[in-house]
Amino acid sequence: MNIAKTLKPKDQLKPKPADENNLGFGRIFTDHMLLMDYQTGKGWHNPRVEPYGPFTLDPAAMIFHYGQEVFEGLKAYRGEGGHVYMFRPAANIERMNRSCDRLCIPALPNEVVLEAMYELIRVEQDWIPRAEGTSLYVRPTIIATEACLGVKTSATYLFYIITGPVGAYYAEGFNPVRIWVEEKYVRAAIGGTGEAKTSGNYASSLKAATEAHEKGFTQVLWLNACDRQSIEEVGTMNIFFKIAGEVITSPLDGSILPGVTRDSVLALCRHWGMNVSERQLTIDDIIAAAKAGTLEEAFGTGTAAVISPVGSIHFKGQDYQVADGQTGALSLKLYDEITGIQLGKKPDPFGWVVKVA
Amino acid sequence: MNIAKTLKPKDQLKPKPADENNLGFGRIFTDHMLLMDYQTGKGWHNPRVEPYGPFTLDPAAMIFHYGQEVFEGLKAYRGEGGHVYMFRPAANIERMNRSCDRLCIPALPNEVVLEAMYELIRVEQDWIPRAEGTSLYVRPTIIATEACLGVKTSATYLFYIITGPVGAYYAEGFNPVRIWVEEKYVRAAIGGTGEAKTSGNYASSLKAATEAHEKGFTQVLWLNACDRQSIEEVGTMNIFFKIAGEVITSPLDGSILPGVTRDSVLALCRHWGMNVSERQLTIDDIIAAAKAGTLEEAFGTGTAAVISPVGSIHFKGQDYQVADGQTGALSLKLYDEITGIQLGKKPDPFGWVVKVA
Ligand SMILES: Cc1ncc(COP(=O)(O)O)c(C=O)c1O
Ligand SMILES: Cc1ncc(COP(=O)(O)O)c(C=O)c1O
Repeated sequence: MNIAKTLKPKDQLKPKPADENNLGFGRIFTDHMLLMDYQTGKGWHNPRVEPYGPFTLDPAAMIFHYGQEVFEGLKAYRGEGGHVYMFRPAANIERMNRSCDRLCIPALPNEVVLEAMYELIRVEQDWIPRAEGTSLYVRPTIIATEACLGVKTSATYLFYIITGPVGAYYAEGFNPVRIWVEEKYVRAAIGGTGEAKTSGNYASSLKAATEAHEKGFTQVLWLNACDRQSIEEVGTMNIFFKIAGEVITSPLDGSILPGVTRDSVLALCRHWGMNVSERQLTIDDIIAAAKAGTLEEAFGTGTAAVISPVGSIHFKGQDYQVADGQTGALSLKLYDEITGIQLGKKPDPFGWVVKVA
Repeated sequence: MNIAKTLKPKDQLKPKPADENNLGFGRIFTDHMLLMDYQTGKGWHNPRVEPYGPFTLDPAAMIFHYGQEVFEGLKAYRGEGGHVYMFRPAANIERMNRSCDRLCIPALPNEVVLEAMYELIRVEQDWIPRAEGTSLYVRPTIIATEACLGVKTSATYLFYIITGPVGAYYAEGFNPVRIWVEEKYVRAAIGGTGEAKTSGNYASSLKAATEAHEKGFTQVLWLNACDRQSIEEVGTMNIFFKIAGEVITSPLDGSILPGVTRDSVLALCRHWGMNVSERQLTIDDIIAAAKAGTLEEAFGTGTAAVISPVGSIHFKGQDYQVADGQTGALSLKLYDEITGIQLGKKPDPFGWVVKVA
């Protein structure tokens, strides 16, 4: 594949952030981006690296009206030996293509996307921060661009990847979060788009998150849209519970996102010989375990935070502590193991890590 | 309110469409658009009419990632006496603000939006077609514009209105459509965004619509996400059934859009002394009525088509005819009455029509 490259002259590159310990998340972008076009009849074409800059889009572009969109989120790390690593990038691109299928967006060849993404990261590798917990966040996105006000699949799309240095998700370390069990709002129902990574899922989640923040909670625990009992996800993470020695997470029933971190945690726990289940738990099960003292740990999993320990669960006016509000041993072990593998510092028994540069 | 106007010189206006009987829908746009900005701390400000033209948006603009968006759809008509009329425009703008609330977008003052919209329509009034069944389609939209990759409410928004001449929705007259009862995919669940007019609802509907079209059906009949029995909507319309003399539509339970046309049909039928109910019907009720010969009519309601008669319903491999596949008497009467009121040609007992110019 031929990726055309239009690079900025060296003396016009933006200054890199001076303080790698204050990068924040999702606010700083690098000098270049990757673009590729789709047109019915022509297919995906013209992959190219260009200077990062604004899009020019018709006000009738379908993305603004009908939300035909998918995205992904992954990271590149400056790891062992100064090399650039990515963690299971093919898993994200395969998921992007499954999202495309649900959203009626024409699939992209996995190999082309991976190669183009690596190329962009090689171009931008000086942007990858080196401070502990930092990385280069990578955001592949596809938007419908046809200018047409009628609900239908678009005839044209833009695929793009933007990247930016991001900080440690936990500015002050690994702090257990307070979560709110959401009984009013719903994230997704089976038969909907919950297992796709598409903008509408996030738009619909804002109201519950806003109300939970106002009440002092960090994240929302989503329940099944129909039984309003079965556990789904927490915020934008998958969720795990350790109850009486068993590590449990919700099954991929069609309404939750199949997280890459979730899958990695399952693989590691099985590898370690733990008792692991993908099975439906209800909020009543969780509360009962908390009361019985068998709720040993709870944690969210996702690319941004890797592991996010849950300190307490708020349900029907009552707070239930998890692991005395401390970070549990399994949470810590998983965090160390996964970040170690990501940086090429620990053995990689599953071949998860790709050396990009 | 002061609406700044930057108008194109007369000799640079686009040519109006030559053939008003071939306007199609949603492909032709007028010379100008209305814009207004929002910024946290500053509120909504700077309403202005400008030449229609592309937006310049950062690739990280939140609309491309998290879908924080609402829109509306209404029409302006060239009616009786050559005046320009709109039909219940305040109902659409009030609905837009309810959608804003669900999507955590700051509300706009109804009066400001109405005035700005009328102003734009007055500027563009030469674009309003005169052929039967044609109108100027009006699309208010709000998009999140902050450049930030993090799921949160945006700090900046763009409100805009674009307009364009549209044709009769039924090129060849008032043809009953074949509908497919959707059992696999779901449009919205209670607690989700189904009652808001937001892009994600339309994105999630594309897959079912595409599969139904491939099987030869025009529209999808959506069922309740949980019981998979209760009737919700049809395509992007509300749905009515006439069974043994009773006119029935689904109640506004939180998962369907509260259509302005739906509300108008309810008001007219009640005004005519008909037996009208907003109550939950199941697909089994409908099939039973079809078998018993009491399913007298079925029709969709929406701004684009006004009334769309249903000719047959396909459920579990079987086609059930409605009203012998013909357009029913009530469908016709409602279509004539509503379009008559919209054009200022029939008495307007409810004060629905606004003379804009
Ligand atoms: C809704 C949702 N669930 C779960 C996850 C975790 O997925 P991953 O581990 O692939 O980052 C994410 C983040 O991508 C998400 O947005
Ligand atoms: C999902 C949905 N349902 C119903 C309707 C009908 O609403 P209205 O009559 O206000 O056009 C629309 C169109 O706006 C719609 O998009």
